[in-house]
Amino acid sequence: MNYEQLFSARGKHVQSPRLAGVNYELTFNWGYPDPACLPNEAVLEAAERALRTHGQDPLQYGGAMGNPKFADQLVEKLRRDQKMDITRDNIMITSGSMPILGLMCDLFVNVGDTVIVEAPTFLGAVRVMKNAGAKVIGIDLDANGMKLDQLEAALATLKAQNITPKFIYVIPNFQNPTGLTTPVERRQAIIALAKAYNTIILEDDAYYDLRFRNQSLPTMYSLAGNTGVVYMGTFSKILSPGMRLGWAVGEAGLIKTMSTMKVDGTSPFSTHIAEEFCKEDGLVNNIAKVRAIYAQRCEQMQDALSEFMPAEVKWTDPDGGFFVWLTAPEHVNIADAVTKARARGVDFQIGVPFFADGRGQNTARLSFSYVPFDQMARGIQIIAESIREVM
Amino acid sequence: MNYEQLFSARGKHVQSPRLAGVNYELTFNWGYPDPACLPNEAVLEAAERALRTHGQDPLQYGGAMGNPKFADQLVEKLRRDQKMDITRDNIMITSGSMPILGLMCDLFVNVGDTVIVEAPTFLGAVRVMKNAGAKVIGIDLDANGMKLDQLEAALATLKAQNITPKFIYVIPNFQNPTGLTTPVERRQAIIALAKAYNTIILEDDAYYDLRFRNQSLPTMYSLAGNTGVVYMGTFSKILSPGMRLGWAVGEAGLIKTMSTMKVDGTSPFSTHIAEEFCKEDGLVNNIAKVRAIYAQRCEQMQDALSEFMPAEVKWTDPDGGFFVWLTAPEHVNIADAVTKARARGVDFQIGVPFFADGRGQNTARLSFSYVPFDQMARGIQIIAESIREVM
Repeated sequence: MNYEQLFSARGKHVQSPRLAGVNYELTFNWGYPDPACLPNEAVLEAAERALRTHGQDPLQYGGAMGNPKFADQLVEKLRRDQKMDITRDNIMITSGSMPILGLMCDLFVNVGDTVIVEAPTFLGAVRVMKNAGAKVIGIDLDANGMKLDQLEAALATLKAQNITPKFIYVIPNFQNPTGLTTPVERRQAIIALAKAYNTIILEDDAYYDLRFRNQSLPTMYSLAGNTGVVYMGTFSKILSPGMRLGWAVGEAGLIKTMSTMKVDGTSPFSTHIAEEFCKEDGLVNNIAKVRAIYAQRCEQMQDALSEFMPAEVKWTDPDGGFFVWLTAPEHVNIADAVTKARARGVDFQIGVPFFADGRGQNTARLSFSYVPFDQMARGIQIIAESIREVM
Repeated sequence: MNYEQLFSARGKHVQSPRLAGVNYELTFNWGYPDPACLPNEAVLEAAERALRTHGQDPLQYGGAMGNPKFADQLVEKLRRDQKMDITRDNIMITSGSMPILGLMCDLFVNVGDTVIVEAPTFLGAVRVMKNAGAKVIGIDLDANGMKLDQLEAALATLKAQNITPKFIYVIPNFQNPTGLTTPVERRQAIIALAKAYNTIILEDDAYYDLRFRNQSLPTMYSLAGNTGVVYMGTFSKILSPGMRLGWAVGEAGLIKTMSTMKVDGTSPFSTHIAEEFCKEDGLVNNIAKVRAIYAQRCEQMQDALSEFMPAEVKWTDPDGGFFVWLTAPEHVNIADAVTKARARGVDFQIGVPFFADGRGQNTARLSFSYVPFDQMARGIQIIAESIREVM
């Protein structure tokens, strides 16, 4: 059967598969949690409490939210930690945060519509946007996030063509892939531009709780006065990616529409077990624990980079999150360094796929979240030697 | 913020929310599993094995399929039970089966496109199709499924308007809501019509394993020679809806495209625990157990209907599944009977929402899967008395 003849306009745009994982002895490639941060025993205890004291609910059908008590815990967490002024009507719970990207595209993006992202930005988000048929425009970053002049110029150019971008996708804390944080003033300026050009912001704050130093910054959702911003987050970095739990925050009417569009209910199984896990400061204590581990990992990577990298190579020193962004001199082809490192069992990610336009050949993302502690220095040494060889 | 001004064509069609659940003392309304069929202790034991012997995998990121070993078990199950000639390349695993409906709409349906369904059919499917902007055409059922003359006439009328329906959605076994089964000859005739009019079939076989009597019938996927049919199924009726596990079967190329379009990975947590549950005939034994329970429930409902219903009321006697379809004389308004029954604490579902066009005022769906065993007769008696009162 020739299925393509029946495809939708969107179906004809499906061309961005997931990056395939290849196993190397040591990988700095993926934004995976440290296995030591995955609380198998505590989750098992939570499963025991949920399956023995919640009756049929964990295994039965649930509503769009899964377990409403878990939704209450999430509201409490976001009010306490993120200082967001929200109620239950402002949130939806999804299977990880990826479906929020999918729903944003379903709700806003016709094939051919434009969205704006940071350049570089999170690969997985661009994959979803492109598969939905979006034209993705990247705005370069400086040390403080999206370059305002470039953002304003892009918005003005689009307006001159009668195009309103459907949303501006921003990762303001410890950005993936750069590790950079957008300060309050820049956040406010981006919000002002979005308002001026009649569009909205999709704020992806996957790493908010993993701040190692300095004060937490107010979310763009709060800075915008709780309107014109959809805020997305995830339990993947603070509990478990395997359990697939994420959330969106937005104005009540919009959340209601997204919830209507949402095809599947959220897992009662995961949300009942998560409720038990989060009780009695379970989540609070877990966040404190994993934050300390990632802070130590980041410091370890910074030390190794300082020790082994050629002087001409620069890298970021993030305030939190999982990632360091490395920039070699312009003539250096990092692809060759990756090949050399892989031959020695060490994998890392060239920066190119994080850009929409083939740039980034002299850049790389190094994840400090996953490599075994005692292999961090050796791995960075091998990467440094590989880069030195191609310089 | 006025978000609507930014909505996609699809976003403007989001208007079909989930049916809200209201609690009554006894409900014949929902297709919920019997709580006695939800294996809390066995799932807990499976969770213990998965979390203690699968290392980081249940809580870590996984691929599009979740746990590949669970995918292998599913292939084995479909080859053995459904007699399907498939390999791993023919399946995808999703969070329940609803996302298959979503992906089929993403891949095939532009706003305004036509799809064909049975009338009556599964509410949740129509909700997803309508929210994707599809025009939904219902084909009446006789005792053997879709009326062929009506299906052919609809296809011919559409063809004369240059319209190819994107798919024909069929529930061939113990249909929701009628309980009817489409025999092999009718399945073959529907396949022939789909081929002749260049469209495909979406075969929803949620209840395949819950056959109480007579031989299992070959799937439409197999009857069509493994082409032109997407087959969808679920673990919701044979393991647990709360764990959100479902699957699609299709030609390898199409499954690859659907998998690329799929936004989120499938839960490693649920698929690792499910793998342990299914091992050593765990799933086989559970299917045998729940099949016997639902067979007994169905018989019990048939007995109660025979005892209490007015002679003018007809109902189906399904070979499997969860549902009986009840038809009162044409002048009877079942809505009034529902009101009367609810006043006595008993809820059931009028047939109207299962049709696309407001028909079905004298019909009802009765689910025998969920009401406590010892309340079945009393509940049916109250429904029968309510119907008698409005006759």
